[in-house]
Amino acid sequence: MEPIHTIRLKPGEQDRLLAGHPWIYQNELEGWPLDATPGDLVDLHDSHGHFLGRGYLNPRTTIAVRVLARDRAPVDQNFFLEKIRQAQALRERVMGERSAYRVVHGEADGLPGLVADRYGDAVAIQLLTAGMDRRRDLILAAVEEVLRPRTIVARNDSTMREREGLPRERAAIRGQIPPEPIVTINGLDVAVDLLEGQKTGLFLDQVDNYPLIERMAGGADVLDCFCYVGLWGLHAARYGATRVTGIDQSPAAIKQATALAERNSLADRCAFRVGNVFDELRERDRRREAFDLVILDPPAFVKARNRIPEALAGYKEINLRAMRLLRPGGFLVTCSCSYHLSAEQFRRMLWDAARDVRRTARLVAQGAQGRDHPVLLGLAESEYLKCCVLQVL
Amino acid sequence: MEPIHTIRLKPGEQDRLLAGHPWIYQNELEGWPLDATPGDLVDLHDSHGHFLGRGYLNPRTTIAVRVLARDRAPVDQNFFLEKIRQAQALRERVMGERSAYRVVHGEADGLPGLVADRYGDAVAIQLLTAGMDRRRDLILAAVEEVLRPRTIVARNDSTMREREGLPRERAAIRGQIPPEPIVTINGLDVAVDLLEGQKTGLFLDQVDNYPLIERMAGGADVLDCFCYVGLWGLHAARYGATRVTGIDQSPAAIKQATALAERNSLADRCAFRVGNVFDELRERDRRREAFDLVILDPPAFVKARNRIPEALAGYKEINLRAMRLLRPGGFLVTCSCSYHLSAEQFRRMLWDAARDVRRTARLVAQGAQGRDHPVLLGLAESEYLKCCVLQVL
Repeated sequence: MEPIHTIRLKPGEQDRLLAGHPWIYQNELEGWPLDATPGDLVDLHDSHGHFLGRGYLNPRTTIAVRVLARDRAPVDQNFFLEKIRQAQALRERVMGERSAYRVVHGEADGLPGLVADRYGDAVAIQLLTAGMDRRRDLILAAVEEVLRPRTIVARNDSTMREREGLPRERAAIRGQIPPEPIVTINGLDVAVDLLEGQKTGLFLDQVDNYPLIERMAGGADVLDCFCYVGLWGLHAARYGATRVTGIDQSPAAIKQATALAERNSLADRCAFRVGNVFDELRERDRRREAFDLVILDPPAFVKARNRIPEALAGYKEINLRAMRLLRPGGFLVTCSCSYHLSAEQFRRMLWDAARDVRRTARLVAQGAQGRDHPVLLGLAESEYLKCCVLQVL
Repeated sequence: MEPIHTIRLKPGEQDRLLAGHPWIYQNELEGWPLDATPGDLVDLHDSHGHFLGRGYLNPRTTIAVRVLARDRAPVDQNFFLEKIRQAQALRERVMGERSAYRVVHGEADGLPGLVADRYGDAVAIQLLTAGMDRRRDLILAAVEEVLRPRTIVARNDSTMREREGLPRERAAIRGQIPPEPIVTINGLDVAVDLLEGQKTGLFLDQVDNYPLIERMAGGADVLDCFCYVGLWGLHAARYGATRVTGIDQSPAAIKQATALAERNSLADRCAFRVGNVFDELRERDRRREAFDLVILDPPAFVKARNRIPEALAGYKEINLRAMRLLRPGGFLVTCSCSYHLSAEQFRRMLWDAARDVRRTARLVAQGAQGRDHPVLLGLAESEYLKCCVLQVL
């Protein structure tokens, strides 16, 4: 049996935990057991000694403990099997047939620090914390039992692991990586780079949002900014756009986007090119170019709460340029994946941008992270993706 | 030519207007022309005499002026034709084939105080302000020109009209009301009561949200609370629910719901009954009944900002009862159509409810008002509908 530490919370610090939030910060603890090492199990008690929950700890990180259970359930093979079965059951229930989706979304699936994404026969996992990394064998066995993949890839290259004191790692840890694994995303054939792609290969959180543009893309001249491997633009082309221009600063992503356009017989209408979106928007605005549909799906500008003002300035800059590039009545799809930025702040920034360029904008549709990325009620941090579709008059 | 008043705003009061917000409050004006009567046109100037915009006024209401244009455009037949054409063009662009939808959504379509809903060959309009009521002939002519309806019904029975000093009115003002107009809503045949139905007949703002439950309804035992004419429950039945119980306090609505179940051959699985939802939830909880899917789509509990606390108590009461009635892993669809209640307050209340009943809830999908009810960026009041789909463990 694995030893389990016991730690008391300071008086009054139990409320968030009791309310279902799964994180305990360093400053909320009475102190550390001298022999605690990253990933150890711990039972949390309130200042009166009442049991609150069981989790794993890391003395190195701001989030000191992540809660796994509200009872004294053993954190064993069965624990992981049950959680992963429940996670997979939710996806089977709420999604249509999908070959690529997130199976385990950390805290929202009761498995803080673990992400598992399915790409056809392959599963890519992220062990983001020492607590999960330590239990890798239990997790792999559970993933194999529930999902029966041919391949399991470890995408342990997040900066979060560094903070946890863990090495970076990118490798197939079960089976072989297929030469070019193909998944189907809303009818598009998409080759996934399981080892080198962003996140675990694709941005799966947007898959439910691409169809938002189905009706706006027909006959449209489209600009897809921060296009990565081109999925917004390729969807637009498939929905009837007459011309798609995609821009991304990564030559590798542009190469993949171009190959995907070929593979899906959309190359005649799609041109993807390497470029800096800020520069390109400014230059195209100067040249008075005009589009019917502009897509802005940038990487997270806000990496920390104290950087919100400069991030907002960045968002506003690209959004107001995009609005100026739109023909009257055109559509802007604009996203933020920064959880530090609230939906309200994002909306306010869009209003500011519209005002600055003297355009009236109306919000026609909204998207959030897809159903395979559920939000744990009470853990605001688990909700991050904002996607607004505006008509700009 | 209609006379146009001129009013100055107090110093510093022009900012919201300049930012695109279309409302001016009484206390922001320097004073009234002595001869101003409700519905008169007015040109707004800042305290230095610079033109800001043109709108219509009402000295009786808190919102003193609603802006129609940012220039000195004549508010004539052509004005209404252009706005209604633009509104219809947006719906044609962003919606699939629909026989029932909102054509004009007030401020978001540049026509504050006007609502027009299409139900097949009929159009139901709401002239909510003196400014719009005064221009009824121009509006009707424009509606006829753009939409070519056989029937136009005036549903001028909102309390908003009372505050504007306008009489209530429910009547066919062009053509005859068909004996039982039928529209198709996501494949369901729905008879619309154009004169007596809620709002203009149906709650069109939820039409895009009903399909959210498509995957959760299969094989489910469903409780549809505040069911009105039963559209949530009927959708659930169509998506494969084994049993649907609908509750509403209106006998007329229950009669319609029952008839709609018959008409759509879903009567064997649907039972709609008159009841008080608060009482029914409490009683069913006491009897330890259990459901797989519970729907809460109540009328607006928050009619004014100072009533938020008691409204939140009401929302929490029904939501926690509903959560208790759910089998582990069941789904809760929970809505609020009160714009006074922010999405954040609504989410927080749901978390409180889950905590009180010691259930873990995860947000799987979210809906908002449909695409035919766009939100004017900067007019927070034009965004009101919240729809959350939770899985409750």
